[in-house]
Parts: sequence; C-alpha cells; structure tokens
Amino acid sequence: MDQDRAGDPECPGLLPEPAVAELRLEAVLHALSDPTRLRIVAELAGVGGGELNCLAFELPVTKSTLTHHFRVLREAGLIRQHRRGTSKMNTLRAADLAARFPGLLDAVLAAAGSCFATPKSTTH
Amino acid sequence: MDQDRAGDPECPGLLPEPAVAELRLEAVLHALSDPTRLRIVAELAGVGGGELNCLAFELPVTKSTLTHHFRVLREAGLIRQHRRGTSKMNTLRAADLAARFPGLLDAVLAAAGSCFATPKSTTH
Repeated sequence: MDQDRAGDPECPGLLPEPAVAELRLEAVLHALSDPTRLRIVAELAGVGGGELNCLAFELPVTKSTLTHHFRVLREAGLIRQHRRGTSKMNTLRAADLAARFPGLLDAVLAAAGSCFATPKSTTH
Repeated sequence: MDQDRAGDPECPGLLPEPAVAELRLEAVLHALSDPTRLRIVAELAGVGGGELNCLAFELPVTKSTLTHHFRVLREAGLIRQHRRGTSKMNTLRAADLAARFPGLLDAVLAAAGSCFATPKSTTH
C-alpha cells in the first residue's frame, strides 16, 4: 500500500508513505490518539509548512520510542520524512490530509491546543 | 474520573460516563480509530438525537465484542447508555462533544461517510 518514492530522483531520501487516496481514517485517528504523537503533529503545524529535525522535539520519551512515534505518523500519512545525511526531517502533510479528510486535522489541532494549554508546564 | 449518575433519580438506568469537562481528546480519537466503533457512531449520528438499542446494529462481530465497543465509546464520552429493562439504549453525545471539541465529530463523520460509501455493500 505504501507509495515508495525512495528511489525517485525528484525526492531523494524520501521515506515510504501512503498516497493521498490511500490515507485511511482509522489509521489517521489511531496515530492521533497518542499524546506524544499529537504533540509532534501540533509542533509541526506550528511551523507552518516548515520541516523539523527529529532531534528538535523536546519530548519526555526515549529516542527509540520517538522513532516509533514518527514511524506511526508517517505510515498513517500524517507526516512526510526525508533523510538528510544522518538526520530525518519531518513535515506535516496538512494539504494531503485536508484534501482527503476536510476539516479533520484543523479540528484535532484546535482541540489539542485547548488540551495542551494547561498541562504544558508539567513537561518542563 | 467517571461521573456516575447511575443512582440519580432523574437519570434512571444511566451508565457511568465522563462529564463534558473530563472528555479527553486522546480517548475520543482512540475510540473513533476502530471501524466498528466508527460505524456505530455514524449510525447513531444518522438518527439525529435519537436512541438505538444495542441490538439494532447489524455489525459483523460477536455480541461480546459489540458490548466491548459500546463500553469503549461510553467511557470515552462519545455515547450515553441507559439500561431499559434488559436492553441498553444508546445516544450520541453530539452536543457534549461539540462543546468540548468543536468541529471534531462533524469532521470525523464526514470523513467516515466518504470512507464507508464504497465498501458498505460488502457487509450485507
């Protein structure tokens, strides 16, 4: 099911990801149902269409757990990952998600914003 | 965390459920991340604010699995359940969800509608 464009010369270093038409609602909702993954998505949304290095996320989990979370997000189609040297760069697939499931990501991000507002200080 | 109003004379037979302020985004998204539960929610949305008996759902799962799914939905705050005699009646907590997470349920239902449109005939 993955659209593996890793060998595409136009997308060097792109890791496998589902095409827009292959995005599954259950997988997207499952990916978003974890607080760490929700926070990653919210941080990526916070930089607009920008990309963030995996190492840029200050989250209270081990590196291997974080790698797992990024993989779940990528395989569900929420984020795009490129290898750049020894780093992985991440972008939110906001336009793809809006095309497939209109309004869903915006509603989740708005809800996450109100949820994270209070307890955020406890993670620092 | 549950708001147990089971003994409330104004709500006879009401099963324990979280109050609106206690609704957790991750739990709601997790509850919605299963195709059977999504279908239950979509069917309840289809009857407006109406209630449906658990037995009214024609789903390809065992009775005990269905009971589990209803419980997950109730504990996440998506549905309200009342005992009536030997039956359990279910209603969607659409207004409560809209108050806590504006736009979320509508976006999920719209997405589910487009997903279910094609494969629905395979379940009959």
